[in-house]
Amino acid sequence: QTNLEQTASYGTDEYSASAKEKIRAACECPDARVYFTVGGTQANYAVLDSLLKNYEGVLAADTGHISVHEAGAIEFSGHKVLTMPGKDAKLDPADVEKYMEAFYADPTWEHMVTPGAVYISHPSEYGTLYSLAELKGLRAVCDKYGMKLYLDGARLGYALAAENTDVTLAHIARLCDAFYIGGTKVGALFGEAVVFTHGDGQRFFTEMKQHGAMLAKGRMLGIQFDVLFTDDLYTRIAAHADRLAMRIKAAMLEKGYRLYIDSYTNQQFFVIANEKLAELEGLAVVDNWGAFDENSSVVRITTSWATTPEMADYLLGLM
Amino acid sequence: QTNLEQTASYGTDEYSASAKEKIRAACECPDARVYFTVGGTQANYAVLDSLLKNYEGVLAADTGHISVHEAGAIEFSGHKVLTMPGKDAKLDPADVEKYMEAFYADPTWEHMVTPGAVYISHPSEYGTLYSLAELKGLRAVCDKYGMKLYLDGARLGYALAAENTDVTLAHIARLCDAFYIGGTKVGALFGEAVVFTHGDGQRFFTEMKQHGAMLAKGRMLGIQFDVLFTDDLYTRIAAHADRLAMRIKAAMLEKGYRLYIDSYTNQQFFVIANEKLAELEGLAVVDNWGAFDENSSVVRITTSWATTPEMADYLLGLM
Amino acid sequence: QTNLEQTASYGTDEYSASAKEKIRAACECPDARVYFTVGGTQANYAVLDSLLKNYEGVLAADTGHISVHEAGAIEFSGHKVLTMPGKDAKLDPADVEKYMEAFYADPTWEHMVTPGAVYISHPSEYGTLYSLAELKGLRAVCDKYGMKLYLDGARLGYALAAENTDVTLAHIARLCDAFYIGGTKVGALFGEAVVFTHGDGQRFFTEMKQHGAMLAKGRMLGIQFDVLFTDDLYTRIAAHADRLAMRIKAAMLEKGYRLYIDSYTNQQFFVIANEKLAELEGLAVVDNWGAFDENSSVVRITTSWATTPEMADYLLGLM
Amino acid sequence: QTNLEQTASYGTDEYSASAKEKIRAACECPDARVYFTVGGTQANYAVLDSLLKNYEGVLAADTGHISVHEAGAIEFSGHKVLTMPGKDAKLDPADVEKYMEAFYADPTWEHMVTPGAVYISHPSEYGTLYSLAELKGLRAVCDKYGMKLYLDGARLGYALAAENTDVTLAHIARLCDAFYIGGTKVGALFGEAVVFTHGDGQRFFTEMKQHGAMLAKGRMLGIQFDVLFTDDLYTRIAAHADRLAMRIKAAMLEKGYRLYIDSYTNQQFFVIANEKLAELEGLAVVDNWGAFDENSSVVRITTSWATTPEMADYLLGLM
Repeated sequence: QTNLEQTASYGTDEYSASAKEKIRAACECPDARVYFTVGGTQANYAVLDSLLKNYEGVLAADTGHISVHEAGAIEFSGHKVLTMPGKDAKLDPADVEKYMEAFYADPTWEHMVTPGAVYISHPSEYGTLYSLAELKGLRAVCDKYGMKLYLDGARLGYALAAENTDVTLAHIARLCDAFYIGGTKVGALFGEAVVFTHGDGQRFFTEMKQHGAMLAKGRMLGIQFDVLFTDDLYTRIAAHADRLAMRIKAAMLEKGYRLYIDSYTNQQFFVIANEKLAELEGLAVVDNWGAFDENSSVVRITTSWATTPEMADYLLGLM
Repeated sequence: QTNLEQTASYGTDEYSASAKEKIRAACECPDARVYFTVGGTQANYAVLDSLLKNYEGVLAADTGHISVHEAGAIEFSGHKVLTMPGKDAKLDPADVEKYMEAFYADPTWEHMVTPGAVYISHPSEYGTLYSLAELKGLRAVCDKYGMKLYLDGARLGYALAAENTDVTLAHIARLCDAFYIGGTKVGALFGEAVVFTHGDGQRFFTEMKQHGAMLAKGRMLGIQFDVLFTDDLYTRIAAHADRLAMRIKAAMLEKGYRLYIDSYTNQQFFVIANEKLAELEGLAVVDNWGAFDENSSVVRITTSWATTPEMADYLLGLM
Repeated sequence: QTNLEQTASYGTDEYSASAKEKIRAACECPDARVYFTVGGTQANYAVLDSLLKNYEGVLAADTGHISVHEAGAIEFSGHKVLTMPGKDAKLDPADVEKYMEAFYADPTWEHMVTPGAVYISHPSEYGTLYSLAELKGLRAVCDKYGMKLYLDGARLGYALAAENTDVTLAHIARLCDAFYIGGTKVGALFGEAVVFTHGDGQRFFTEMKQHGAMLAKGRMLGIQFDVLFTDDLYTRIAAHADRLAMRIKAAMLEKGYRLYIDSYTNQQFFVIANEKLAELEGLAVVDNWGAFDENSSVVRITTSWATTPEMADYLLGLM
Repeated sequence: QTNLEQTASYGTDEYSASAKEKIRAACECPDARVYFTVGGTQANYAVLDSLLKNYEGVLAADTGHISVHEAGAIEFSGHKVLTMPGKDAKLDPADVEKYMEAFYADPTWEHMVTPGAVYISHPSEYGTLYSLAELKGLRAVCDKYGMKLYLDGARLGYALAAENTDVTLAHIARLCDAFYIGGTKVGALFGEAVVFTHGDGQRFFTEMKQHGAMLAKGRMLGIQFDVLFTDDLYTRIAAHADRLAMRIKAAMLEKGYRLYIDSYTNQQFFVIANEKLAELEGLAVVDNWGAFDENSSVVRITTSWATTPEMADYLLGLM
C-alpha cells in the first residue's frame, strides 16, 4: 500500500543476495565474488577480458567453444585465442606445460601474444570430464607460468552429477581463478552464475555493464539461481539427465553401436551408419555432428531435466 | 510423444517469428529486419558498432545514456561518443547542422573522429519528446552529411502514447535507420526489439553473438513481444502510465511545485525543497537527481504499467 | 670483415642502450624503463592502454590532443577520454579533485567509466606550463583516487628550457608515472622516448608491437636520442627557440598586439585583426587558429631549432 | 629567405606526391590510392581493419606473420586470424575453396567469425613465391565468397626480382585489393607503401592516424620511396640480393647440404647438422630456425642490398 516503488535493480535485490550466499556455501568459499550474466558467451568474454592483461591471450583446445562458436567475441574484446590440440576435447596438463616451455624458449616470444589464462570447459564440448588430478595439473602449470585458470561451466551440473567423477564444486572453486555455473543448459530459462574465488573480479559489475552483459531486472536471475541452489536442485536436475544418458549409452553399446567418444554426461556421441541416420529423419532428434567416414556419421544424443524414461525408450526402440 | 526434442533456439522459433511479423506491421515496414536483445546497452552498442565504419563516432547529447551510463560500452567497441549540448535533453537539428559544418570547415578534420551516426533517445533521458518536424530535421542533416540516424527507444511506448505527440512508430521507422523498441522498461520482464528499416543489419545475428547480446532461448523474448504487440498492448500499457503521470503533474503544479523540465511521458521532474525531500524519506520513492540550488533538489517521479491511481493519490497526499 | 651480419633490431642495439642510459641519468631515475616510439599518437595510446585497466578511462582537458586530434586512437584501444574544462589549457588540481569527488558521490558511478589516469601535456596545446606546485597537486589527487599521472611531452624541451619554469625533468620523472620526451617536434626527424618511472611498463615492448608502435630498425631512434641527450643538446635546441619566441612576444606586445594566452614556450598566440591577417597572406606563415570575434582571429607563431634571428626580424617587420 | 616556414606535414609534401605517382605508374594503376606507413605490422593491421567488416576475420596460413609475430595486433583491432595449414608456407587456392565450402556448409556458420579477407605474403615467411596462376586462383575464390585479397609485401622486391617468377607488380595490383610494398627490408631505413587498387581505402589517412600508423614528418617516407622507385632501384637492389642467394644455394647444394624449402628469394633455408652449427658459432651469422630432427637444425641465410660477393664467399668457405 505504500507507493510507486520498484525492486532494487541490477542484481542488488534480495533474491540475488540469497542466491549468491547459497552459491558461496556450495563452493565452500565464503569470500567468492558471484555475479549473474544472461548467457555463456557474455560470461566467457567478460570474465576473460577481466582476467587478462591487454597483451595477453587465452589458451584453449581447438574444439573449445570460445575458439569456434562465439563469433569472435574474445577477439572483439582484443584478445587472441591461442589454440592447441586437445585430447578427448580436453587440455592435457603436460601438453600445456610443453606449450609454455616452447613459448618462452622461442627467442621471439616478446613479439607474440603471451598466454595469460587457460580456458577449459567441464564437461568439454564432447561431454568428457576432467579428473581431479588433471585439474590439479592444470593449476600447477598455471601457477608456474603466471596464468589464470578459467572454467566454462555451461553444462557444469552434468559434470558434478556424473557417476564416475571425482571433482566437486568445491574443488573447482579452489583450483580455478574463475568459472561460471551454467543455468541456461541446466534447467534455468537463462542465466549463468560467474564466480571469482581468488580475489579477481572486484569491478566486474562495471565490466559487465561495459560488455553489455548486465540484466536490468537482475532479480530474475537471482530467483532462478536461488531455487536451483536450494535443496541441491541444480545437481538433482543434472543427475536425472545423466542417468538417462547412461541408460541410453548402455543400450546403444549393447545394440552394437560404436562410441565416438566416451562421455559420462548428458551428451552422448555415437558413430552410426548414414543409412540408419536417413531412417531416423523426422522420427527422432539426434544431432548430426558431421561425417565420420564415407559411410557413417557422428551423432549427438542429449538428455535434459525434461527428458522422461519414456522418451529414452522411444528413441532406443528406433535404433 | 515423439522424442528428445528441443525448440529451435537463438530466436528462430515460432513465437519470435510471429512477434517480428507484428512489429513489421506496426512499423508499416514489411522489409524491416527485427532482432531481439536482452537489454538496452547491448542494443545500443551492438547496433552502433554495426552502423558505424571503424573510423567513425556517434554524435549524442551530453546527457545521452550512451554518453554517461553505459560504462564505456561504445568506446569498448572502438567508437568515440562525440557529445554536444542538448536542448531539453534533445538534439536540435540546427545545432547538429552547425556542428557538422564546423567539423568539415576545420582543416584538421581528417585527424579527428568522423561523426557517422546521430544518437537520440525518444523519450529523452528527461522524458521530453521529439516532434515530427524535429525528426525530419535530423533526418535531413543526416542525409546531407552521410550519417545514420539511430533512436534509443528504451521507453518508446511512453512516447508513442503521450497525449501531445505527433510521432508514430511508422514515422520513426521511416525516418530512422535503426531503433529499438524497449521492452524492459515498458512491461516486459526483459528484452528489446531492434529494428533496421533502411537495409542495414544484414549480419546482425552474428554481430549480436559477437557482442554477447544473444539469448540462447530466444523464444522467451519472442513470447513477450508477441504478446506486447497483440491488440496494441504495448501502447495501452504505456498510455496508462502516461495518464497517471499527467495527473500527478497537474496536481503538483496546482500545489505550486515547479517543473524542472516539461515532460509528457511517465517520468516527471520537479524542483522541491530539500526540507520536503527529507520529510519524504522512507515514505515515498521519489528519485533524487541531484542539487538544483542550495536549498532545493531535482526529483524524478516515475509511473509504470503497475502504478495504480491509489498509489498516485497516496504520493500526492504526501506532497 | 666477417659476414652477412645485421645489427640487432627492434631497439636492442647499442645506440639505443646508450640513449636510454643518458635519459635515465637526465631523469635522475636509474630504474626508469625507456622505450622509443616513432610518433606521439602511438606513444599516447599505447602508454595509456598499458596503464589503464579495461574499465577505466582517462581524464583530460577538453583541449587535450587525445581528446580531439588523434582520430579516436584512445577509443580504438577501448578507453573513453573523459573531458573537463581546462584553465589556460591546463588541468587545475582542485578541479580534478572536485571531478573525482562528484564521480564517487554519484550513486550510479559503477555504471560509468572509472577515471584511471590523468592526461596532461607540458607545454599544453597552447604553450602554457604547469608549475611544480600544480604538478604536485595533480600527483596528490592521483594518489588519493588511485589514478596514474601521464604527461604528454610532445614539446617537452620547450617547457624545460622556458625562462620562468620551476619544473625539471627530474621533477617530472618523480611526479608522473609515465611520460614521453618528444623528439619529432624538438629537433629529431621523428621519435619519442617513452619513460616509465614508477614500475609500470614491464611488458611495453610487446604492447608496442601489438599497437603497431615499434620500429624494426630501432637504432635510428636510438641514434637520434643518443645525440639529443649528449651535452644537453635537447634543452639547448629548445632554449634557442624559446628565446626567439620571447623576443617575438616582447616585440609584439610593444607593437600593441594582444596576447590570446600567455605562453613562455616556442608557440605564441596572439589576437590580430582580420585585415592584418589578410595582409600577411603569402608573406609569412602564422597559423590561423580560428575566429576570436567578428573582426579578429587567433594566430599561432611557432619557433624551432631552425628559426634564425633574421627570420624573427623579418616576421616582426611585417607586423 | 621568407620566413618561419615548415614543409607540409603528414605525407602531403611534394616528395610523397612524386613517390606516389611513380608507384601508381609501376603498378599500372593510375587510380591506386597510395599511403606510407612506418612499419609492416602497422600496415597489416590498419589495412585489414579497414578492409574487414566488424564481424569478419582474416584467413591466413598458420605460418603467416600476422598469425604469430605481431603480438596480437589484428586481434587488438577486433578481428580473428583464422588459420589454415599452408603448403610451402603458401595458401593453396583449392584449400581456401574447400575451407570456404566447409564454412558455409556448417549449419552453425552464423555463430562463427566470417572470413572476410585472405592474407598472403609474397615472398612467404619461407621465401617461397606464388605463381601467377596461384594468385589468379586466390582471386577467383575471393570473388566467389565476397572476400578481399591482401598481400603482405614486406620483402616484395625479392619476389619481383626472382629469376623464376612470372608475377609482376602490375599483376599484384590487378589481382589484389590491397598490398604493401616493403621498404624496411628492401633498402629503406624504414617505411612501407600501402596500395589500394580496387577502390578501398578512401579514408585510410584517418584510419592510419587512429591506428597510430602515421608519421608526422611524412616527407621522410616520401623521399625514400621516391628514390627507390626511380630508375627501378627497388628491383635492382633486390635482384642483387637474389642473385647472391642463388649463388649460395647452388654452392650449398653442391656441398651436399639439404634444402629445407626451395626458395628463389633472398632468404634460403637449409638443414644442417648440429655439430656444424656449433662450429659456425661466432664465425658467421646464420639464423637458427629450430630443430629439424635430433641431430640437425633448420637455418636461414639472408642476403640483402648490402651483401657483397666477398661476404658470400666467406660464408661458403666456412660451410
